[in-house]
Amino acid sequence: MIPLNFLGEGQSCDFTVTGSWAKKAYSDSKKRGKVNVIFDGAEEKFMRIPDASSLTVTAGAAYLHITSNETIEGIEWHDFPETGDVPMIADMSSDIMSRPLPVEKFGMIYAGAQKNLGPAGVALVILREDLLERCPDTLTAYLNYKIHADKNSLYNTPPVFSIYALKLVMEWVKEQGGLSAMAELSEKKSSMLYDTMVQSNGYYSCPVDEASRSKMNVVFRLPSEDLEKKFIDEAKNEGMIGLKGHRSVGGCRASIYNAMPVEGTEKLAAFMRKFAEANPQ
Amino acid sequence: MIPLNFLGEGQSCDFTVTGSWAKKAYSDSKKRGKVNVIFDGAEEKFMRIPDASSLTVTAGAAYLHITSNETIEGIEWHDFPETGDVPMIADMSSDIMSRPLPVEKFGMIYAGAQKNLGPAGVALVILREDLLERCPDTLTAYLNYKIHADKNSLYNTPPVFSIYALKLVMEWVKEQGGLSAMAELSEKKSSMLYDTMVQSNGYYSCPVDEASRSKMNVVFRLPSEDLEKKFIDEAKNEGMIGLKGHRSVGGCRASIYNAMPVEGTEKLAAFMRKFAEANPQ
Repeated sequence: MIPLNFLGEGQSCDFTVTGSWAKKAYSDSKKRGKVNVIFDGAEEKFMRIPDASSLTVTAGAAYLHITSNETIEGIEWHDFPETGDVPMIADMSSDIMSRPLPVEKFGMIYAGAQKNLGPAGVALVILREDLLERCPDTLTAYLNYKIHADKNSLYNTPPVFSIYALKLVMEWVKEQGGLSAMAELSEKKSSMLYDTMVQSNGYYSCPVDEASRSKMNVVFRLPSEDLEKKFIDEAKNEGMIGLKGHRSVGGCRASIYNAMPVEGTEKLAAFMRKFAEANPQ
Repeated sequence: MIPLNFLGEGQSCDFTVTGSWAKKAYSDSKKRGKVNVIFDGAEEKFMRIPDASSLTVTAGAAYLHITSNETIEGIEWHDFPETGDVPMIADMSSDIMSRPLPVEKFGMIYAGAQKNLGPAGVALVILREDLLERCPDTLTAYLNYKIHADKNSLYNTPPVFSIYALKLVMEWVKEQGGLSAMAELSEKKSSMLYDTMVQSNGYYSCPVDEASRSKMNVVFRLPSEDLEKKFIDEAKNEGMIGLKGHRSVGGCRASIYNAMPVEGTEKLAAFMRKFAEANPQ
């Protein structure tokens, strides 16, 4: 919907292509107009987020699109660029509500609920009001953000259950101490796993650039693919599932969204140490 | 999404404009190409569905769009036209699963879940496979039916809760005896209300053409707007809510979707008789 609403006839937009999700958004924007790729991580196998201060947006670009966290590659933006007159639009599906955000830097933030907000089936959109003026009248109604805004998100029959569940999750986040408490928790959980790798003397390795490491999706490799398979199988027997890396990158991946308690990562870290000892390389 | 996928460059489509929902779909198709209105109920205030055998589709039209039930006006298609080579596409949001259907007559059937299928937040699409060839590659991914079909409806993270609830509802329908049992039930519930009007000697009147009356949404008027207001208020005190007609048409409306038991309409019919007696015109 972003290119349909905000990429006007003859305009171009900027993209940072940081991984699998950014690529999907990029290919959609490309269908609707010219796209300037101002950062492309493909040659480095998407192991790095660009340095925010090194990015230069294109003057007159309709927007800059970024993906704040790449779930498959395990990288995350920790600082956001200054984009001046070019509105920054971010897909925050996989790390929204995990930390305080400089919301004022963004023209638009969007996020599917299914990671940190609630059940799949609803998406959150935070949109700077002046951008609504760009939504073209030629769009069919449901695809036009202006119509949704004018109707207070009630143009369609809203997915009431999902919205209610999202409300409960937001209340839970508040009770926990809000976004700074979530950030602290994510820092604690992710450090625990990254530190376990360091302490393993190379048994576990993280392929990702240190400054770009995600606090939501911790990816790691073992000395061999056979050991990775064994690790995933044995972890499953201990009740830890979903540790297989995405098939496009292989390896292992621990997704530690807000709903994962510290005890979960403690259990995983202990299992990592035990496994390394029991299965020397 | 229908005009985006199926209304090719330079093509036209046919529409029957039967009420509020058809008008919305019509205005979207009109944004994307030429629309031939082969039936327009506006002059008759949308009180009638066209006779299926009297309709002539336009040769070469991309599709004919119909709305099988108009919730606001209380009219419903009971027979469907023969459309030859022109695929018939139907919005069945408000009466799907209420009766057996000649599915083979349709190129596409779509329905929001929130009436007879389950909770709001998921839509059902039944699509004739050959139509997928028309979906243009220039569409952004999520809007392309072909991508959803190729990925077995798993291109996006599916709204699992809504789909699960829909499955439970489908199982319930089967247990009740399937679509023919649903049709019998709808016939029984709607007749009960329409008969109550007839027996009221004109106290209650149905503005809708007899052959077009909906079995899902029964609309009726009282002798005056004041009495209508009183009727709605008193019904509310008896635990019957949602009887107010849509503000665009006024009057009263009883929505009796599959989830409404026969006892509900029995209670309403009894209340209608009691109210008419207590409040003579």
